[in-house]
Amino acid sequence: MDFKGLYEKKRIMINNYLDDIIKVENAPDVIVSAMKYSLFAGGKRIRPVLSLSVCEGLGGNPERVLPLACCIELIHTYSLIHDDLPSMDNDDMRRGKPTNHKVYGEAIAVLAGDALLNYAYEFILKTISDNNFESKYTLAGQIIGKAAGSTGMIGGQVIDIQNEGKNMSLEELIHMHSKKTGALIEAACAIGGIVADKMDKLDDIKDYSHNLGIAFQIVDDILDCTGDANKLGKKTGRDEARGKSTFVKILGVNESRKLAIEYSNRALNLANMIDKTGFLGEFTEFLLNREN
Amino acid sequence: MDFKGLYEKKRIMINNYLDDIIKVENAPDVIVSAMKYSLFAGGKRIRPVLSLSVCEGLGGNPERVLPLACCIELIHTYSLIHDDLPSMDNDDMRRGKPTNHKVYGEAIAVLAGDALLNYAYEFILKTISDNNFESKYTLAGQIIGKAAGSTGMIGGQVIDIQNEGKNMSLEELIHMHSKKTGALIEAACAIGGIVADKMDKLDDIKDYSHNLGIAFQIVDDILDCTGDANKLGKKTGRDEARGKSTFVKILGVNESRKLAIEYSNRALNLANMIDKTGFLGEFTEFLLNREN
Repeated sequence: MDFKGLYEKKRIMINNYLDDIIKVENAPDVIVSAMKYSLFAGGKRIRPVLSLSVCEGLGGNPERVLPLACCIELIHTYSLIHDDLPSMDNDDMRRGKPTNHKVYGEAIAVLAGDALLNYAYEFILKTISDNNFESKYTLAGQIIGKAAGSTGMIGGQVIDIQNEGKNMSLEELIHMHSKKTGALIEAACAIGGIVADKMDKLDDIKDYSHNLGIAFQIVDDILDCTGDANKLGKKTGRDEARGKSTFVKILGVNESRKLAIEYSNRALNLANMIDKTGFLGEFTEFLLNREN
Repeated sequence: MDFKGLYEKKRIMINNYLDDIIKVENAPDVIVSAMKYSLFAGGKRIRPVLSLSVCEGLGGNPERVLPLACCIELIHTYSLIHDDLPSMDNDDMRRGKPTNHKVYGEAIAVLAGDALLNYAYEFILKTISDNNFESKYTLAGQIIGKAAGSTGMIGGQVIDIQNEGKNMSLEELIHMHSKKTGALIEAACAIGGIVADKMDKLDDIKDYSHNLGIAFQIVDDILDCTGDANKLGKKTGRDEARGKSTFVKILGVNESRKLAIEYSNRALNLANMIDKTGFLGEFTEFLLNREN
């Protein structure tokens, strides 16, 4: 399998679609510019790639899930803009570029995040409409909404903030990340199954994506500690500087790596059951071995 | 007509419903507390009251539009929390209480706003589901999405920020407010018509709500300049202090008052065509003559 080629093809498909839908008319130029700045800052498009791959792996047409998959990327992007704000993680650089508020100022950055979040749902509702109000698109939208909200991603972010400077247990850390990072990854995978009409696979998909999400976050923590700042496009050691609990802080680098492999292997087994073409499995390994 | 009694009945109906749906399970306590703090800070519930009144006035069952009407109130509340942030209007008081970030800190205030916006759409999607995926609920949701986004309310907020310290023309000011304040008021009225299945009335409803929205904002500007800070629950003169253009700055108090009456009268004529019971007309006059 030409994994790199297939991944690149999916990324291009996603980027083209995002580029298409972000041409918002009748909005002030600066807000569209700020939205696009972060949306096209070179993200890996992990979440929408997962949606497409799960859908295709289960025999569905990936183009059918593409609009909703791109909405998840809009939501992910808004969350990064708000996370980077001075009142939150106060980050100056992301993906090798100044963060949104460094370029546009804090007020526009808050509003660009708001606008991306709002637009995601505008577009989910449009997708329901475009698909003749077929119920599965609403159900997929509900899953995205729950994952992004205060019981999911926002809830995880709150737990993160509340625990700065405190020592979290491994269990607490996993719980936090299963919301902060995991929830949206799980939703991305779930909507692939729903649009492919494979409701009976949702349990497997959940198991897969839960394990993937934790593996992904452990790798993130390792990279923040040992990674190459140039490859990462941001300063390393930020978590420690902010007094955040990390897998590396609790377990050390070697044990963290072992735990990441453990979670990733569990995900890998499930990936190959969901997607017989093998792409999802390769993608799972790619995420484990990434350098940024 | 016992206007006050009817208004109070609608407010209670809205407050009870909001109280019911905001019981978010599995979310950190602090975020639910921050969401509720601003949601139950004593708002007039103007937007959802408009939805109920237009729906009922056109022969629809107001209970059918109540869920979506309350989602508009969630969106309105998030916008106030973010508007009050130090990087935006930097307001310490609203409705006689410290603003959200003064109580919960800036990070939680950003997230509480995000969570309210996200929850509004979670609940719109749930409402579509609960109503058997009937198309009109999706269409109403789309109208809300457009009104709240970068072509509507957020766009207006951006124009507002970009024009601080500049002298806007009357025309520019009306354009800005038709987005910042008007868009959500217009959406609130439109969904009343949609849920009542009166698509043929949407033009009248748009005319009504556009005029009402401008009248509403002119009165706001007058109150910020001449109002009683105790009744308003916030400092007066804030617009001037921030170098914002206002109707009062451009026209003076007397001419502003005349203009408000002009817009309100146009709205009043349409109100009485939409709602033969007369409530919408009385509500329109109430908003013109309010002291907070």
